Amino acid sequence: MSEAVPDSRDPLPSWNRGFVKAAILDFVAQVTTEGTLTYKPPSQRIATFDNDGTLWCERPFLVQIYFLVDRIKAIAIDNPALANQQPFKAILENDRETIATFTKKELVALIFATHAGMPQEEFLAVAASWFNNAKHPHLQQLFKACIYQPMRELLDFLKAHEFKNYIVTGGGVDFVRVIADEIYGIPPEHVIGSSGKLKFELQGDTPMLTKLPELNSFNDREAKVENIALHIGLRPLLAFGNSDGDLAMLRYTAAGTGNRLALLLHHDDSDREYAYDRDFKISPLVEGLNVVPTLQGGMLVSMKQDWKRVFLF
Amino acid sequence: MSEAVPDSRDPLPSWNRGFVKAAILDFVAQVTTEGTLTYKPPSQRIATFDNDGTLWCERPFLVQIYFLVDRIKAIAIDNPALANQQPFKAILENDRETIATFTKKELVALIFATHAGMPQEEFLAVAASWFNNAKHPHLQQLFKACIYQPMRELLDFLKAHEFKNYIVTGGGVDFVRVIADEIYGIPPEHVIGSSGKLKFELQGDTPMLTKLPELNSFNDREAKVENIALHIGLRPLLAFGNSDGDLAMLRYTAAGTGNRLALLLHHDDSDREYAYDRDFKISPLVEGLNVVPTLQGGMLVSMKQDWKRVFLF
Repeated sequence: MSEAVPDSRDPLPSWNRGFVKAAILDFVAQVTTEGTLTYKPPSQRIATFDNDGTLWCERPFLVQIYFLVDRIKAIAIDNPALANQQPFKAILENDRETIATFTKKELVALIFATHAGMPQEEFLAVAASWFNNAKHPHLQQLFKACIYQPMRELLDFLKAHEFKNYIVTGGGVDFVRVIADEIYGIPPEHVIGSSGKLKFELQGDTPMLTKLPELNSFNDREAKVENIALHIGLRPLLAFGNSDGDLAMLRYTAAGTGNRLALLLHHDDSDREYAYDRDFKISPLVEGLNVVPTLQGGMLVSMKQDWKRVFLF
Repeated sequence: MSEAVPDSRDPLPSWNRGFVKAAILDFVAQVTTEGTLTYKPPSQRIATFDNDGTLWCERPFLVQIYFLVDRIKAIAIDNPALANQQPFKAILENDRETIATFTKKELVALIFATHAGMPQEEFLAVAASWFNNAKHPHLQQLFKACIYQPMRELLDFLKAHEFKNYIVTGGGVDFVRVIADEIYGIPPEHVIGSSGKLKFELQGDTPMLTKLPELNSFNDREAKVENIALHIGLRPLLAFGNSDGDLAMLRYTAAGTGNRLALLLHHDDSDREYAYDRDFKISPLVEGLNVVPTLQGGMLVSMKQDWKRVFLF
């Protein structure tokens, strides 16, 4: 019956008791208890989180794909010829078979092609407006509500212990920045993502910062580490991902000196969310299932076993 | 006599009374007073500062040039052939005439060539160690003491009002990161600078993050704005520079809606520091002297008139 009585002192009420929850609580206690050998000052308390499939639901398609579809529909109104051109045609016709053949990198490139050619601040307004209405097709909730409650609790718990939480996502940096503070309490400057090139110039006397239709960085796999070093300049104490695209970040984190935690979420819960790993084309999980448990501080997280609840709704 | 009696309530005691000091105090009051139309929440309080010549002394040569010289001397011990190769030869022989012909971009490229090919964390240790001993040749003080006291007060004043202070420098991001927290109270993740490419890979089972001898971004002029947008994702409320390399950042800041402050330091004080503008090859100031006063919120800062003291020593 103790499950039914929430412990008001439990900072992670949506996590089931077990090795993972104990490891998280123990890790935070070790690095934040002053006067111990394992203590790390707040300046070093960096935690990095993948977004798609780690903080919010990424199935059946990435959230940004739904935004992309709506962007293409909006653009096609002004430019009807797009309806006969691939890859736009497949998206406008909801041709899932063709869409399913797109690679992750092709999708990101497509995202930038349709998100660019406008002032950066205009794009941010378009994306912010979209998030107010767009709903997940199966869960029937706003996408911004489809975040994992146990992860939100973990973010808050770390923040309360003076960790700086960062999102390190393959998704577009501007897209995630418009919503990250509202749903995760993570400010724009703590979002590292895939990015297009930007161009600053004077148009007449007006300074304009424009998003170019050209990839700057595809923030996946090794690039996640390289961009952590570029943006933060410190090795994380804790990293959390859910696919082989996060494995470099988990290895880099685990290889640091002292206490580290490298966590890999396994989607094994078809009742409450989805069950997938190697079959998910966008973010396959194959190597990580074998590697992460061998890393120092490395640990698999089972959605089915370790999470008491998945969503807040 | 009032000059001799420090006002304990004055947050900027090293600034002389005048239009500039009044404008800074007024700006901060306007954007931080709740319930007013000019109020901005802390999340939007971004302030960006150039480093060389804005926060610390950049003459007779950039601080990083002295580090570069010491790096080249250290490398030449293992590789004596360098003594006959330009541009190393000029530096090893202290051939100031040849050194003076180097462009800013050549210097940065040279910096990366001699700072790279090693693990990122090894470089950070080398640079941190250098800062503990290296002295300014004229001022006879550690370089890390050659920071402008009025600017340190301004940084602290803004921080106390929940501004997030960023350095946006043409200098190497790793070089500045090792010292910024100690001397400015600015953590590594708030330093945006010129950067080399990084490479993450497994060497055997060991994850290694290596600095490559290849430029990623030369953070000067328009690139300063593009990198602010990439790293922060928000337009600054306040920006501070001292050369035409900062003009794009000042224009971008000033063009935002609501109260903004775009400040340009003019080195016109040969008695206490240096007097230079268009003649300084590394960071010339020509266009900014005319443009900044025409910007909304734009203002020139005279070292001679606006600063009561320059250094703390």
